[in-house]
Amino acid sequence: MALRTAATRLLSNTQKCAAITASRAQGTAAPAQKGSMSKVAFNWRDALDLEGQLTEEEVMIRDSFRNYCQEKLMPRILMANRHEHFHREIVSEMGELGVLGPTIKGYGCAGTSYVAYGLIAREVERVDSGYRSVMSVQSSLVMHPINAYGTEAQKEKYLPRLARGEILGCFGLTEPNHGSDPSSMETRAKYNPSSGTFTLNGAKTWITNSPVADIAVVWARCEDGRVRGFILERGMKGFATPKIEGKFSLRASATGMILMDEVEVPQENLLPNVSGLAGPFGCLNNARYGIAWGALGAAEFCFHAARQYTLDRIQFGVPLARNQLMQKKMADMLTEITVGLQSCLALGRLIDEKKAAPEMISMLKRNSCGKALDIARQARDMLGGNGIADEYHIIRHVMNLEAVNTYEGTHDIHALILGRAITGLQSFTVGK
Amino acid sequence: MALRTAATRLLSNTQKCAAITASRAQGTAAPAQKGSMSKVAFNWRDALDLEGQLTEEEVMIRDSFRNYCQEKLMPRILMANRHEHFHREIVSEMGELGVLGPTIKGYGCAGTSYVAYGLIAREVERVDSGYRSVMSVQSSLVMHPINAYGTEAQKEKYLPRLARGEILGCFGLTEPNHGSDPSSMETRAKYNPSSGTFTLNGAKTWITNSPVADIAVVWARCEDGRVRGFILERGMKGFATPKIEGKFSLRASATGMILMDEVEVPQENLLPNVSGLAGPFGCLNNARYGIAWGALGAAEFCFHAARQYTLDRIQFGVPLARNQLMQKKMADMLTEITVGLQSCLALGRLIDEKKAAPEMISMLKRNSCGKALDIARQARDMLGGNGIADEYHIIRHVMNLEAVNTYEGTHDIHALILGRAITGLQSFTVGK
Amino acid sequence: MALRTAATRLLSNTQKCAAITASRAQGTAAPAQKGSMSKVAFNWRDALDLEGQLTEEEVMIRDSFRNYCQEKLMPRILMANRHEHFHREIVSEMGELGVLGPTIKGYGCAGTSYVAYGLIAREVERVDSGYRSVMSVQSSLVMHPINAYGTEAQKEKYLPRLARGEILGCFGLTEPNHGSDPSSMETRAKYNPSSGTFTLNGAKTWITNSPVADIAVVWARCEDGRVRGFILERGMKGFATPKIEGKFSLRASATGMILMDEVEVPQENLLPNVSGLAGPFGCLNNARYGIAWGALGAAEFCFHAARQYTLDRIQFGVPLARNQLMQKKMADMLTEITVGLQSCLALGRLIDEKKAAPEMISMLKRNSCGKALDIARQARDMLGGNGIADEYHIIRHVMNLEAVNTYEGTHDIHALILGRAITGLQSFTVGK
Amino acid sequence: MALRTAATRLLSNTQKCAAITASRAQGTAAPAQKGSMSKVAFNWRDALDLEGQLTEEEVMIRDSFRNYCQEKLMPRILMANRHEHFHREIVSEMGELGVLGPTIKGYGCAGTSYVAYGLIAREVERVDSGYRSVMSVQSSLVMHPINAYGTEAQKEKYLPRLARGEILGCFGLTEPNHGSDPSSMETRAKYNPSSGTFTLNGAKTWITNSPVADIAVVWARCEDGRVRGFILERGMKGFATPKIEGKFSLRASATGMILMDEVEVPQENLLPNVSGLAGPFGCLNNARYGIAWGALGAAEFCFHAARQYTLDRIQFGVPLARNQLMQKKMADMLTEITVGLQSCLALGRLIDEKKAAPEMISMLKRNSCGKALDIARQARDMLGGNGIADEYHIIRHVMNLEAVNTYEGTHDIHALILGRAITGLQSFTVGK
Repeated sequence: MALRTAATRLLSNTQKCAAITASRAQGTAAPAQKGSMSKVAFNWRDALDLEGQLTEEEVMIRDSFRNYCQEKLMPRILMANRHEHFHREIVSEMGELGVLGPTIKGYGCAGTSYVAYGLIAREVERVDSGYRSVMSVQSSLVMHPINAYGTEAQKEKYLPRLARGEILGCFGLTEPNHGSDPSSMETRAKYNPSSGTFTLNGAKTWITNSPVADIAVVWARCEDGRVRGFILERGMKGFATPKIEGKFSLRASATGMILMDEVEVPQENLLPNVSGLAGPFGCLNNARYGIAWGALGAAEFCFHAARQYTLDRIQFGVPLARNQLMQKKMADMLTEITVGLQSCLALGRLIDEKKAAPEMISMLKRNSCGKALDIARQARDMLGGNGIADEYHIIRHVMNLEAVNTYEGTHDIHALILGRAITGLQSFTVGK
Repeated sequence: MALRTAATRLLSNTQKCAAITASRAQGTAAPAQKGSMSKVAFNWRDALDLEGQLTEEEVMIRDSFRNYCQEKLMPRILMANRHEHFHREIVSEMGELGVLGPTIKGYGCAGTSYVAYGLIAREVERVDSGYRSVMSVQSSLVMHPINAYGTEAQKEKYLPRLARGEILGCFGLTEPNHGSDPSSMETRAKYNPSSGTFTLNGAKTWITNSPVADIAVVWARCEDGRVRGFILERGMKGFATPKIEGKFSLRASATGMILMDEVEVPQENLLPNVSGLAGPFGCLNNARYGIAWGALGAAEFCFHAARQYTLDRIQFGVPLARNQLMQKKMADMLTEITVGLQSCLALGRLIDEKKAAPEMISMLKRNSCGKALDIARQARDMLGGNGIADEYHIIRHVMNLEAVNTYEGTHDIHALILGRAITGLQSFTVGK
Repeated sequence: MALRTAATRLLSNTQKCAAITASRAQGTAAPAQKGSMSKVAFNWRDALDLEGQLTEEEVMIRDSFRNYCQEKLMPRILMANRHEHFHREIVSEMGELGVLGPTIKGYGCAGTSYVAYGLIAREVERVDSGYRSVMSVQSSLVMHPINAYGTEAQKEKYLPRLARGEILGCFGLTEPNHGSDPSSMETRAKYNPSSGTFTLNGAKTWITNSPVADIAVVWARCEDGRVRGFILERGMKGFATPKIEGKFSLRASATGMILMDEVEVPQENLLPNVSGLAGPFGCLNNARYGIAWGALGAAEFCFHAARQYTLDRIQFGVPLARNQLMQKKMADMLTEITVGLQSCLALGRLIDEKKAAPEMISMLKRNSCGKALDIARQARDMLGGNGIADEYHIIRHVMNLEAVNTYEGTHDIHALILGRAITGLQSFTVGK
Repeated sequence: MALRTAATRLLSNTQKCAAITASRAQGTAAPAQKGSMSKVAFNWRDALDLEGQLTEEEVMIRDSFRNYCQEKLMPRILMANRHEHFHREIVSEMGELGVLGPTIKGYGCAGTSYVAYGLIAREVERVDSGYRSVMSVQSSLVMHPINAYGTEAQKEKYLPRLARGEILGCFGLTEPNHGSDPSSMETRAKYNPSSGTFTLNGAKTWITNSPVADIAVVWARCEDGRVRGFILERGMKGFATPKIEGKFSLRASATGMILMDEVEVPQENLLPNVSGLAGPFGCLNNARYGIAWGALGAAEFCFHAARQYTLDRIQFGVPLARNQLMQKKMADMLTEITVGLQSCLALGRLIDEKKAAPEMISMLKRNSCGKALDIARQARDMLGGNGIADEYHIIRHVMNLEAVNTYEGTHDIHALILGRAITGLQSFTVGK
């Protein structure tokens, strides 16, 4: 207490004898940041210079695909989403650009780095998560398992056509009663020695692309209790793919079920090189990695759009962006996007070096999705009433990211996956 | 609706004919993550392989300093904090280890990379933010300005002794009435042509190290209205450094005021190579960078301690760590620490390459401190009643991080700095 | 440290000699809560006995209207929302039930308490915020201003028909460029002495009901600079109400603009008894009060639906509701709903006693909307993939509450209204 | 899109012909709130008129006790907390004021309503949670069980002296290894038929008041496996109460262990009228009710102090309180305090009417503590650097509320209690 008195006394003396200097000129009033670092300009679009950490090839792939996304996809998305219309031709266009199954070597695929794959996912999801979902399914959930677990014949038969976008695939794992717990799978595959075929029975749901897919990689439990993958083709008897109506997320992509009623599948359509849940989980990890990048692309769009909106809109005589409450929201957005992307880059490099563990992917899928959803919600709020109009795009991202945060492992499920990795104790199930 | 009915019907048939397989064996019941990545073990202590991104030298510096921190500092901190005791000898020990002013080249300094500096800050703050504060002040706020803005004579006189920890410095910028707004500085320096000295009057407060410092780098407004830095020495007449009592944060470091009542400072103690707020802000940026790493070190300690505590403590028949609510907290901690550190690394590399902007540092100082404070609070909560006992260390970090989140730019002030960088509009002051 | 050793030693002795009792039987293992209070059963649908604090009449009104909402509105909402269809006949049905302008005395209105009004809003918004919006506009924004500021002739002409739902009204305040700042209103009314009419020019947007409304209460700035209210009727020349397309919120109600191009309004359609912003603000306060109740009704629906869903859905062998992460979300929902409703009740009583201040309404409008939005989002998350299907209703509430949290004062604007009331300092505008 | 164009065109016309009115005068620029409610002044200290809902007697009790707290306790707390000093005389002073065991009828107790009890707790915790803890223990955990479960002789022997504060009690339930799970209690009581005494062995920890208590109500497991309560007196052989050192929460109250090494307790010291966990849980419910009120008292202090600080402190030329970021924090504080208190009042009335269920208390204990802790942390942040000095009091509340949020059921444990009440499924233990 005495200290404060002493200080106050001193200050009064100081104040008396000090000439009053114009200390509040614009330049110094705000905590300007100068010094040895001040010559580098800060770029709010790339706050930690991610650009400088990419290879030339990665930048080139990214830029050409970004052009496509902004010029060809962006103009279509408003009505596609409003009317729940899936533009099938987009897949062919992507095929032409070489972005389907991009990390696969051979079979007409580009053989890029995983970082490049991430950059592609980010650009397409900057437009729409539904489009990215279509692409993720084709690349990570259809082409990847055929490449990783299939026979040479299967690869040659399917991969080039999938890479060109000539045919579209879907991935059947999730069942109506088993969202987060694929180990309880009810779909069954029974071998018929006489015909050399498998008979599949069961139902899958929330299957991206299913209503329009030409082929489906479906996981089923065989008689030995092991889960195995099969390539089903449209036209097989007993195979139906009804569309799910009334979806308020990812409306620009088609979602449906896969119903299998005594579907006969030739033995050569079995993926022979994997059994157990390792198969589908390998695919999911691949896809989740792309989502980790993609969700942040959506978040970036929302951040940039909200920034521009608040700069343009004048309320109470100043741009909305002049308000502290707005600036704080943007500072949070910038930070989460930046640190999230930086980690995605590090993860991509680790995958390329074969040093990545699945839990790393769980961590970043969860982080990117949770943060992107928060950012989209904040951005929507910043637009006020206009924020609910699809014309401004952000509400669409809000709705999309609800699904993205949920599919391929919910936010909570990935928390428990990480919790198990941290503690060595699983807490999914009640039994010890 | 019809879809669901159809699916349910199909499933019933499926269930009937399917042999029940033991699907809930430990291995598959939980969403195990296998596939092509499964051979890499996940390391919860380093979830994105930061280690693999460091140079050998950086690892070596880090490891030897970590040993010192754990073996020499950790045993002292409990009582130092409980009784508000500052161990002056720590500075000398650090000097011997070469970690004071480590990035400076020459003058007895180590000349390490900025990444190494960050790793050092992280290790010492893993023990205590008070100790890290002492070190930050010495390195970034005293040695750095002398090195960056001082004369050759000043450098030769002070830097080697500061580097050895023979003398201790402090940094006088903040004033009682101007916490976040140094541009309103009231401390005055008046030049006396006759004696070739400056007369300083004013008060500084919340000055780490001041009660025990041998020298002080003090910022004052000169008659031309420009702010300049001066090196004051203990013993100068009119110079007093009363200790602030009743501090419930950073108790292991000494904090006080600097009171200057007509202090005569020789002209050769003026730092000649900077004027304006660029001087102190350059120092602050340097220190903030170290804080960005350091705060995450404190967070890591809290995470690891809470993890071990909940593994050891049995409630309702299982370790606390078996609870979903606990695992979710730990998953969040792991994620924020990992993405935070990854970004600090990227920033350190940018500084080393002279490609960093001050706003990058604001962003990570803010992110690390805010997240670390949250993590410490959650960790304290996980310890239940024991969490308030200093013996378990976490409550100390909670209290420390309150100051760390506040000093050298509060969480909100850095938000506004970022907001300005994003929008081009400042919102600190009310006037346009 | 010594203490813990002593305690541990003692405990070991104790353990040795103590007979092991079956302490983990179901009844005692969990922290059962017994004692003097244990005879009162806890009702999670009404956790602080709101029911017991209502009058018999209020309960009766509530119950009969709840029946209508559940039996007549609930079956219509799914398709109405999916296809953006507004059922005009609902207004007539509500009129028959006497819930339009319910607090007004006379003119065919029910003259209920404000608490009863709140209960009505809660029941209808439990079904859909769009329906509640239709009702709020009719009651608070059309009937209220006519009753409060109109002539006897106006009351007699409009109120009975509005009360019966024979005609539908809308409220024109918000303009395209002035969402949160009605004081910058650009719509102009010019008096023509010759004809005894006013000429109105301007545009209003985000106007609930406008495309289907028979009358509009429109606010315009007169030549003396004062804002005044006018009753416009469909059919007046120059009056147009184009619908806003692509809305992803409140899709079951119609939203549009009001465009006024030299609309001639007879002098007798001026609301004579108010001028300035007091007029529209009085209406908004009335409506906001209803929103405070209504939003919590939507939240209750989401909570109850998520509860039932997680009880019904089995994952990893137990109902989802058995998971700690789910229970924590529900505990938070229950708490916020309960304390929110309790405060709405207190506010309703204060309004009835004429002891309410507008800031009280700001506080609860903001609290209810912000909390309801959070609850709806959490509930959606609990439904996993199914949470994005409109069939499960929650995603609809999520989208609706985005608008509800924004209109009639955004969450942030109400924060600043409260901030001003707390500090006496306004922070809306930059100028002092 | 077309709509917006149309509107813009119209607006331009409008703007051209409209006279520019001075629409931005202070009075209207900000969204002023006027109308029928505007005559009631808003009171930020009591935002929903809690005062008007109290009885005259309750107000009187509250006011006189508030005077005592502010005049007699407030001046002592700074040093008491800084030096961990418990002022035993406070208990006697409270006894004189009649606030110990206030709801008990007879035996020298005041026999007030539960609402009055809550108001008392709020006033004392406005000063310090440690002082409130001392009072809660005496009233709810010592006097209440003697009154509810004791013999007439026990009541006559202890209650009047406890009510006067002549003797001080403590409550021994929690054990070193069983914080949240009292059903695993290890303390044993063995009956000795020969001497008519019970022999108690075991250890209790985190016992408020234990080092200075004259008596202790201790819960132990008897040979029949049932838990029963005993009144122990200081001086009994084998009874020790070592103080816990290094506590950084509730430092103004004494906390310790209770160690029982073959303590002989006469049969007449058994509380005969309860067995099982119903006994201690009844006490805890009583205490938790007081905490629900008390924690909000602490929150109110922090809110009011931060408000005044930010009004007084000028930065960048305006009071800190003029900043949007500050006002938003205060708006949140005001809201949570107000809705929290309103619910505490409703609960108090329900207890008085014997219509309360224990889960109601869990809900509000959890809500008040969690929200109060958040508020205290925000308030501390608002004080910047000064916020860590005990002189400003808020840091003390931050530290206190960590314990308050934890003891008598942690935030998470109460979530699970509520979760069980909502779902009918317990999730404390892993076994089904």
